[in-house]
Amino acid sequence: MKKNILIVPGDGIGQEVTEVGKKVLIKIAEKFGHEFIYDEALMGHVAIEATGNPLPDETLEKMRASDAILFGAVGHPKYDNDPTAKVRPEQGLLKMRKELGLYANLRPIKLFDELLGASSIKPEILKGSDILFFRELTGDIYFGEKGRKNDGDTAYDIAEYSRYEVERIARKAFEAARTRGKKLCSVDKANVLETSRLWREVVQALAPEYPDITVEHQFVDSAAMMLIKDPRRFDVVVTANLFGDILTDEASQIAGSMGMLASASVGDSTGVYEPIHGSGHDITGMGVANPMASVLSAALLLDISFGLKAESDAIISAIDQVLKAGFRTRDIADSTTAPELILGTDAIGEEILKRI
Amino acid sequence: MKKNILIVPGDGIGQEVTEVGKKVLIKIAEKFGHEFIYDEALMGHVAIEATGNPLPDETLEKMRASDAILFGAVGHPKYDNDPTAKVRPEQGLLKMRKELGLYANLRPIKLFDELLGASSIKPEILKGSDILFFRELTGDIYFGEKGRKNDGDTAYDIAEYSRYEVERIARKAFEAARTRGKKLCSVDKANVLETSRLWREVVQALAPEYPDITVEHQFVDSAAMMLIKDPRRFDVVVTANLFGDILTDEASQIAGSMGMLASASVGDSTGVYEPIHGSGHDITGMGVANPMASVLSAALLLDISFGLKAESDAIISAIDQVLKAGFRTRDIADSTTAPELILGTDAIGEEILKRI
Ligand SMILES: CC(C)[C@H](C(=O)O)[C@@H](O)C(=O)O
Ligand SMILES: CC(C)[C@H](C(=O)O)[C@@H](O)C(=O)O
Repeated sequence: MKKNILIVPGDGIGQEVTEVGKKVLIKIAEKFGHEFIYDEALMGHVAIEATGNPLPDETLEKMRASDAILFGAVGHPKYDNDPTAKVRPEQGLLKMRKELGLYANLRPIKLFDELLGASSIKPEILKGSDILFFRELTGDIYFGEKGRKNDGDTAYDIAEYSRYEVERIARKAFEAARTRGKKLCSVDKANVLETSRLWREVVQALAPEYPDITVEHQFVDSAAMMLIKDPRRFDVVVTANLFGDILTDEASQIAGSMGMLASASVGDSTGVYEPIHGSGHDITGMGVANPMASVLSAALLLDISFGLKAESDAIISAIDQVLKAGFRTRDIADSTTAPELILGTDAIGEEILKRI
Repeated sequence: MKKNILIVPGDGIGQEVTEVGKKVLIKIAEKFGHEFIYDEALMGHVAIEATGNPLPDETLEKMRASDAILFGAVGHPKYDNDPTAKVRPEQGLLKMRKELGLYANLRPIKLFDELLGASSIKPEILKGSDILFFRELTGDIYFGEKGRKNDGDTAYDIAEYSRYEVERIARKAFEAARTRGKKLCSVDKANVLETSRLWREVVQALAPEYPDITVEHQFVDSAAMMLIKDPRRFDVVVTANLFGDILTDEASQIAGSMGMLASASVGDSTGVYEPIHGSGHDITGMGVANPMASVLSAALLLDISFGLKAESDAIISAIDQVLKAGFRTRDIADSTTAPELILGTDAIGEEILKRI
């Protein structure tokens, strides 16, 4: 198979982990006889520094021209500490999502057996949890009009959803549930928000088309609680952009660490694959970032964008073996891990490569 | 001390638990020689059934005339399943908050030692956690304009914050931090939302006035994760209405159960004290609801609205003793609890009363 893959490392540890992700793709191509052609592009803070624009036109063109995108992370404390900054790394990320029509963000939360102890949640609560989140990614309060009034003293953000936006993501979630545990939990705040009431209406209206799927509606506050209390009750979860952002980060604790979680953003055109963790500026340059989320993003890319299931499984199995061999990065190590088994970004990357 | 207390049981288990809360207040008055005069009023689904209005004028008048309000919960599955319903129990709750100017919702998350094992989070992660949330309660996307356009096919909700709204809740949080661990974490989504950028600006601008307080800003997604990963790093948390709703429900797992958490809503006039749990229609009428959140709400009422610290402590100590004696309600029982120690709402209420 011949494919063009665009690598967009972005900021901070995004650069460190994406390098490992790319190496894994190169190894897979070698091993399975594919021809992957790589290009690279800037986004986020590094793009602002180089061009003044968090998503330069050149990057967007390269994205459109590629078959799939492996992305790192964007963000920089400089902007976080300056709420008045006009140009921000995150604008690049949001613009990419919108321009590429990436309305569905899939975040699988699956625990590697070896990491059952790494979570702050009790192993007996976690064991067997396997959740697939569908986070809507191009609507909601992220993309509605926002601004200031009253001489800057009042700020506003408009949340907005249209019927078709809810329907297309809900359909994807229903269909995924069909291939899994046949349970769909739709999360909203319909007791307060009009966008949530529309959301619930649409999901309710679709349900009769999927009679084999058990549908449940939960309020977001309650879902945030149940995810911790009893994660096994969830199978597929579908929710709006903002709620999905919050709940999936929270759910990362089910998998032991954010460093283990990949995501796929798909929709109208080229898919984007990225860790759910951020740019981690507190650990940038230290060489300790866990690259497994990027490696698992590469696996998702092969599976979803190219339909290469065996290749994707080979990656997951390599990670499984590395964990079984006892190797850990700092974030997933615990008091029982021998110090010599705690590896940095590149070293654990090598262990993964060896096992592919 | 002579005081007027309004009892507003509301819906579902709200009625069952508030009765216990009231009995505890009666016992305290008896024991400490106060004169508490009670009145009762309708709100929520029961008020809609009786009057068509989730917050009848009569209730609002009684609220304004009272010195403090002990409230239960509102909500009914009937409305949750009908996103098009025009009159809803929650409207009563939101209107009460707005009309009484209850802009600060305090939610203390404190673990009783005896319940260290009841949580899904590991005891060694939890031990010693003690968080006080300040949730803004009269602004944000809860109260901005909301509606439909495009023939009902598009829904919108406007989130809005003004500088003074952020400032008054932030000041309360800074001042509380001063009496506690001297750490304040402000939670927002300033990398995406304009309301959050205003929020962060205001908190940053106030910080120099409180040089003894260490201020940290966290994004809501990251905070949702950190609360589970390392709850002890939090002391006082201040956040917007919607984020506070989600994070405090999640944080209830730190305390073992939502059934253990009370909240105080204060602001311009009469304070309202209520469990953070909802109307629990799945267990209504079964007599199994945990009344401790209502009892602890009564304790908060005495402490915050009447300044009766000894009386408040007497209640907390009674609950502590009941737990030490091994008594549990269903929600906080575990596999080691002897069946005869699992009590219903009234029976555990009696055990609490005996120990005051
Ligand atoms: C960086 C930020 C804008 C982004 C989001 O909120 O979507 C991130 O948290 C994510 O989840 O991808
Ligand atoms: C019932 C609902 C409207 C309410 C809220 O969202 O504020 C509840 O969840 C709460 O936390 O008090």
